[in-house]
Amino acid sequence: MDWRAIKRILVGKPLETLHLDSERLSKVTGLAVLSSDALSSVAYATEAMLLVLMAAGPPGTAHALAVGGFIILLLVIVVASYRQTVHAYPQGGGAYYVAKENLGTTFGLVAAAALLVDYTLTVAVSVAAGVDAITSAFPGLLGHRVAMGLGAIAIITIGNLRGIRESGAIFSIPTYFFIAAFGLMIVVNVIHPFGSWPSVGATATGTTTAVTTWLLLRAFSSGCSALTGVEAVSDGVAAFRPPESKNAATVLVWMGLILGAFFAGSTYLAHRYGVLPVGEQTVISQLGHGAFGNSVFYFLLQFATALILILAANTSFADFPRLASFLGRDAYMPRQFAARGDRLVFSNGIIVLAVVAGGLLVLFGGDTHALIPLYAVGVFCSFTLSQAGMVRRLATRRERGWAGRAAFSAVGAVATAIVLVIELATKFTSGAWITALLITLLVFAFYEIHQHYGGYARQISAKEWQPVWPRKHVVVVPVAGVSKSTAGALAYALLLSQNVRAVAVATDPAQVQKLQDDWDLWDSGVPLEVLVSPYRAIVGPLLDYINKVEDEEKPDWLTVVLPEVVPARWWHTIFHNQTALAIKAALLFRPRVVVTSVPFHLRR
Amino acid sequence: MDWRAIKRILVGKPLETLHLDSERLSKVTGLAVLSSDALSSVAYATEAMLLVLMAAGPPGTAHALAVGGFIILLLVIVVASYRQTVHAYPQGGGAYYVAKENLGTTFGLVAAAALLVDYTLTVAVSVAAGVDAITSAFPGLLGHRVAMGLGAIAIITIGNLRGIRESGAIFSIPTYFFIAAFGLMIVVNVIHPFGSWPSVGATATGTTTAVTTWLLLRAFSSGCSALTGVEAVSDGVAAFRPPESKNAATVLVWMGLILGAFFAGSTYLAHRYGVLPVGEQTVISQLGHGAFGNSVFYFLLQFATALILILAANTSFADFPRLASFLGRDAYMPRQFAARGDRLVFSNGIIVLAVVAGGLLVLFGGDTHALIPLYAVGVFCSFTLSQAGMVRRLATRRERGWAGRAAFSAVGAVATAIVLVIELATKFTSGAWITALLITLLVFAFYEIHQHYGGYARQISAKEWQPVWPRKHVVVVPVAGVSKSTAGALAYALLLSQNVRAVAVATDPAQVQKLQDDWDLWDSGVPLEVLVSPYRAIVGPLLDYINKVEDEEKPDWLTVVLPEVVPARWWHTIFHNQTALAIKAALLFRPRVVVTSVPFHLRR
Repeated sequence: MDWRAIKRILVGKPLETLHLDSERLSKVTGLAVLSSDALSSVAYATEAMLLVLMAAGPPGTAHALAVGGFIILLLVIVVASYRQTVHAYPQGGGAYYVAKENLGTTFGLVAAAALLVDYTLTVAVSVAAGVDAITSAFPGLLGHRVAMGLGAIAIITIGNLRGIRESGAIFSIPTYFFIAAFGLMIVVNVIHPFGSWPSVGATATGTTTAVTTWLLLRAFSSGCSALTGVEAVSDGVAAFRPPESKNAATVLVWMGLILGAFFAGSTYLAHRYGVLPVGEQTVISQLGHGAFGNSVFYFLLQFATALILILAANTSFADFPRLASFLGRDAYMPRQFAARGDRLVFSNGIIVLAVVAGGLLVLFGGDTHALIPLYAVGVFCSFTLSQAGMVRRLATRRERGWAGRAAFSAVGAVATAIVLVIELATKFTSGAWITALLITLLVFAFYEIHQHYGGYARQISAKEWQPVWPRKHVVVVPVAGVSKSTAGALAYALLLSQNVRAVAVATDPAQVQKLQDDWDLWDSGVPLEVLVSPYRAIVGPLLDYINKVEDEEKPDWLTVVLPEVVPARWWHTIFHNQTALAIKAALLFRPRVVVTSVPFHLRR
Repeated sequence: MDWRAIKRILVGKPLETLHLDSERLSKVTGLAVLSSDALSSVAYATEAMLLVLMAAGPPGTAHALAVGGFIILLLVIVVASYRQTVHAYPQGGGAYYVAKENLGTTFGLVAAAALLVDYTLTVAVSVAAGVDAITSAFPGLLGHRVAMGLGAIAIITIGNLRGIRESGAIFSIPTYFFIAAFGLMIVVNVIHPFGSWPSVGATATGTTTAVTTWLLLRAFSSGCSALTGVEAVSDGVAAFRPPESKNAATVLVWMGLILGAFFAGSTYLAHRYGVLPVGEQTVISQLGHGAFGNSVFYFLLQFATALILILAANTSFADFPRLASFLGRDAYMPRQFAARGDRLVFSNGIIVLAVVAGGLLVLFGGDTHALIPLYAVGVFCSFTLSQAGMVRRLATRRERGWAGRAAFSAVGAVATAIVLVIELATKFTSGAWITALLITLLVFAFYEIHQHYGGYARQISAKEWQPVWPRKHVVVVPVAGVSKSTAGALAYALLLSQNVRAVAVATDPAQVQKLQDDWDLWDSGVPLEVLVSPYRAIVGPLLDYINKVEDEEKPDWLTVVLPEVVPARWWHTIFHNQTALAIKAALLFRPRVVVTSVPFHLRR
């Protein structure tokens, strides 16, 4: 099987580094690649808000428009605040960089950890939600949820491994399809040409819950899931065609307008027609029936919703590898995350995200509902830190008009911080504690990795060359008897040094004479020492012998030359070289000792 | 954590090879070590036979004594036949050797494969059955079945790793405890001192099944599970103290007598008191109540039965490693199985058996009922081949009195062959096909391994030493830049050859000048070639460079010296050496190319 050819078919030809610029995003593809996560949230945000308000019956749902209004106000503030970020950080101003530069490293790493966790959960949860939308239409597929979810992740992964522009092309169609379908649904419902609405509207039945401030705050916090994904554009500024900041800012505003209009529209319509999330149908499905009846347009809207939910995962596939590459470049994650693959994308980040999210999907059997409470904490944590960072930046630089802009970001920071506190308070025991713990552990890991790389760089740096004088080199060749592989190792050893010693271990005293006789018959000129090992251990006596040689000869370098049998079939390796591996492992931490394997190739 | 110390505590001090003889088994410990599998079968054999006969109601169970009589006759024949084997093969005459020597290699390997499969199943099934006996008494433990089973396997494994004589000491007590408890139960029931029996005896209710020959054959075949484990002694002759054959033969007869008495006793008692396997209680449990009522003796009998079932696994732990060592010595399994460990036992076989049986236990969640149909096929396959081999041997040698002895073995071979056919016919679809398939695959694997070792031995043999002339040696040092690890690799390379070349790969044309300048500043005397890799690949351009060097210089040996970073913490290795590993893998199959890593040790 030619893996190289398969890889070429799936991922495409390698791209040269100098093509990096031509792989950038236009505004149109940028909107498609970076906004599917944000736009997909209109599929559930209104519903999430109404679910909380319903607990207080009609007096509760009467507040839907007011709470929705506050959420749209927050959306305006956050988008405006991120526009400032996009202009301030044309190289890509994710929460990580903004918080790190203005609030200090720890806050930056907290924001980064929060986003990495969130992106991973987004992939698992969105894909599972999209698969659910399909299996509700075709219940026969219910047994294949995990396989379908993994298939969706595989398709998204391959699309992203192919490269930014092509994945933009792959994902533009569904995003614009959703925008068209959802927009049409709102317009049709608003102008309402088809006469009276079918009476699907259910009234919330009387309950005992009162309309408290706490209830309204919880409704507000639940509805704020509409804002998830808004940060994607600011993280991806560098992926746009020049002028990057200007293009990114334009796309951010487009996205904000579409998102705001869709959320406002569906909240208004739900209020106007008394639609509530009761029974089997979602609010959007009911609005779809209201607009299109049971016509093909209804099914197109549902299909587009399912698609955009699966594609929300794609935004994470654009963001996670990019954020990981920043962390890799700054030595807070393994450097491999900062290396661009064949197709100029950060392949390692893409693959790690796919594997972890796929693992979550398998672990939860395709039903990732348990993950949803873990989910919004990360976004609002990064919103808060990012906007607080912008306040600090503006206040420090004090450029013209800074006060107004800082006030804007400050309001955004406070509002998102309140949402964060509410999210943590209301969901802590049902899973938010896991997110908090994961973020903490990741921050510790980032610091540990950074410390390691720092120590490594210090220890390895060598500006000056130390001249090499003639040095004493002793070569030890452990042998099992006379054989061609021994002969190969011995011939190679004689190439390296004049001072070569062969050594054999006999586990039975009866073998000693035979080994020595065979060796003498060879007459290779290299002396053989036979060690007797009454306890049948091999490695221990060899190490003792090497210690003895080091004590006697005091060499500058000691090389252990081992014959290594390379079988014609890979699985035949289990029959060979176990002792060689044990010797290598035992000598790995010895300074100035090198272990070399001389291959002996078996034919079939 | 000092693994060495932990191993010492669990397994004990290493033993010298010359202690091998003093680790042999006496007759008393030999009976304990080698008979628990056979004796444990009285716990279920009578019951298995009655379950088949019950299908025909009272006319069926009326045949219990007759069928039981045939089983005891078969037991006598098999034991007598194996006595001849024990005398003929003092070095250990398992079915493998007997069949191989007299019927040819393939039959020997079939017998060996059958036994290996059977031993593994015995461990999983016996341990699960023993755990079941405990959880029936304490249902609260039901959730911990897998953990308890794995714990039991771990204890047996450690006992066996400690060595033969000590494991004999560990396992003598429960075996003799079972013999005493079961014997007492039979004696008490026979002399019947406590007046009338409680009316636990249930009569088989009327059914439609007739008493056919097929039914009787199936009852016979089910009851023949009483014979499983009888072969253990003949496999283990070499483990006895001298005179090995005589001691083993004596133990075989002891075992046959005990087993026969217990099986005959419980079958007779079941018949006399009308005990049938109905309701929740086993036949043995009912007989126990009959003898001891609800006194402490009843619970001791149940406890002893549970213990002997778990210990039946121990017989497999004595047999599997020994058979694997024979196969390893004959190069049909990896040679490691033939090597004695620290404590003079075949540790690798013990560990492999523990891992595979533990894996089965986990896979089946502690409930290994599904494995039982797979199980008796192996034993009767090896019985048949072993006795057929003895017939052939006796008929070929024609020593005095051979005809009578051969007739004995021939009757045994035919009888066990009939049982084998019945087992296969009645259980084929419910699992025996898996056993048949596994045995076939194992035999193919044995031949494949044998062929590999044969080819290896031919290819590697070298009686003559080829003198080493001065040879051309070129050393290539791939570097990432100037650093101490590069300096170490370069210094070592200069020790090996005059002809050293350094090579770097630049993934960005901008790096080329910087690499070259840094290198020139070093002035090491080794020239540096910088390769530009527009597609950011590292290994490909390096291989091209090595090809070019080989074409230009035509060296006899080419060594690639790589710096290898050895971090202070093992998990830090994920940050380093990935490229080095890829280079090693790519060059593994090149003749006359050696890849050497020069360690650079990081401090914390």
